[in-house]
Amino acid sequence: MITLQDARRVIAAAEEKAGQVGQPMNIAIVDAGGNLVAHVRMDGAWVGSIDISINKAFTSRAFDISTKQLGENAQPGGQFYGIHASNNGRIMIFAGGIPLTKEGKVVGAIGVSGGSGEQDQQVAQAGADAF
Amino acid sequence: MITLQDARRVIAAAEEKAGQVGQPMNIAIVDAGGNLVAHVRMDGAWVGSIDISINKAFTSRAFDISTKQLGENAQPGGQFYGIHASNNGRIMIFAGGIPLTKEGKVVGAIGVSGGSGEQDQQVAQAGADAF
Amino acid sequence: MITLQDARRVIAAAEEKAGQVGQPMNIAIVDAGGNLVAHVRMDGAWVGSIDISINKAFTSRAFDISTKQLGENAQPGGQFYGIHASNNGRIMIFAGGIPLTKEGKVVGAIGVSGGSGEQDQQVAQAGADAF
Amino acid sequence: MITLQDARRVIAAAEEKAGQVGQPMNIAIVDAGGNLVAHVRMDGAWVGSIDISINKAFTSRAFDISTKQLGENAQPGGQFYGIHASNNGRIMIFAGGIPLTKEGKVVGAIGVSGGSGEQDQQVAQAGADAF
Repeated sequence: MITLQDARRVIAAAEEKAGQVGQPMNIAIVDAGGNLVAHVRMDGAWVGSIDISINKAFTSRAFDISTKQLGENAQPGGQFYGIHASNNGRIMIFAGGIPLTKEGKVVGAIGVSGGSGEQDQQVAQAGADAF
Repeated sequence: MITLQDARRVIAAAEEKAGQVGQPMNIAIVDAGGNLVAHVRMDGAWVGSIDISINKAFTSRAFDISTKQLGENAQPGGQFYGIHASNNGRIMIFAGGIPLTKEGKVVGAIGVSGGSGEQDQQVAQAGADAF
Repeated sequence: MITLQDARRVIAAAEEKAGQVGQPMNIAIVDAGGNLVAHVRMDGAWVGSIDISINKAFTSRAFDISTKQLGENAQPGGQFYGIHASNNGRIMIFAGGIPLTKEGKVVGAIGVSGGSGEQDQQVAQAGADAF
Repeated sequence: MITLQDARRVIAAAEEKAGQVGQPMNIAIVDAGGNLVAHVRMDGAWVGSIDISINKAFTSRAFDISTKQLGENAQPGGQFYGIHASNNGRIMIFAGGIPLTKEGKVVGAIGVSGGSGEQDQQVAQAGADAF
């Protein structure tokens, strides 16, 4: 179970990191069912990243994997190439989505979008670490 | 302009009202572009209301009208009957979406979903009043 | 939690009822996240009912209500009229979807489609009773 | 013709193989029309693989080819590159979908998703062999 309070704690940590990185972000949290618990768009963050942050979180829970790792397997010639066409366009295959685990079990995920892949990943990691 | 801080203030007021009403809610805020600024799903709120809260907010800004009022004009025989089929299914025509105005200008909207039409409307109004 | 074994028990009971009613059905089970656990199309059941059965189950969990009851509130002039346009067309507002509850908590749902509203409801009820 | 009984036999064989492989899977069967006959999600299988299993089965019947073979022709530079954008996102171009044939004719397909490409393929093959 991920409560709204959990989600807010994770988002706060991610926001703080985004501030340090100097890049405004969209940050989204989903629960074990892949359904949105909370989302924030920091002032100035990209509008196109709303959907991406939510779907990075969905993707990370949908396959219990970071979107970065999934992306490595979803390149041309890779075993999952083409997976980005599934699930009605909800599968994101670049960095910024990380599963949230409790006692070794995935119970949700965070998705971050708004900067470079590296920045998104850093911010998502900071959020995941606070869970 | 609606900042994330504005959105959080509005959401906090709506959440408090939802607590008083005794019904957990999905609450969403969009900006002048109709794009999501923030969303929360209170613990126990319906999963099907995530999309509805976001789209009630979108609808209220899209037409600068409450979804309740739009709904009155969107009944069979009404002047806007069928409008719910437009905008790729994003138009909600029942209570819970209210424009957020600054100096007489609509700059965003709140959308609430999770209870009866009356409850959603009350909670959205509490949020709008806090803007 | 709904296990695949749970889903199969519910489906078996629904199938048996469908046999008694004399109408082949699509039967679908979703979990607490609204995600599909199992689906069967009985021989001769309508192809168009595949999607409907899955989405009736989704709808019942999405709002913790039977689709029959939701439908009563989603008629023109009703408090939820227009809800069928939300959630990307996944909301079904006619009989055949029933929540599955454990210790008073909704943990999933069954959706049945293939006959009249009354038949769908009967078959879904038989399934829900076996949970 | 694929009956529900056929589908269940194929699924049972695939499930058994998935158990041996040690990876829970989503398994879907479609008929000659490409329409779903049955689907199961084994306990613990990925939520994102529900859609993929169903659509691997659809793809295999849609083109009377394994998704693995189709994928080889759908890489950048290949003759079918871009095919994954067709059919409203229902075309899967990685291993796990296999046509089901009777007397040399394709009458349906199995789609499996939940593990590596190799695992999915093995499990799908075990199912197809049981047809």
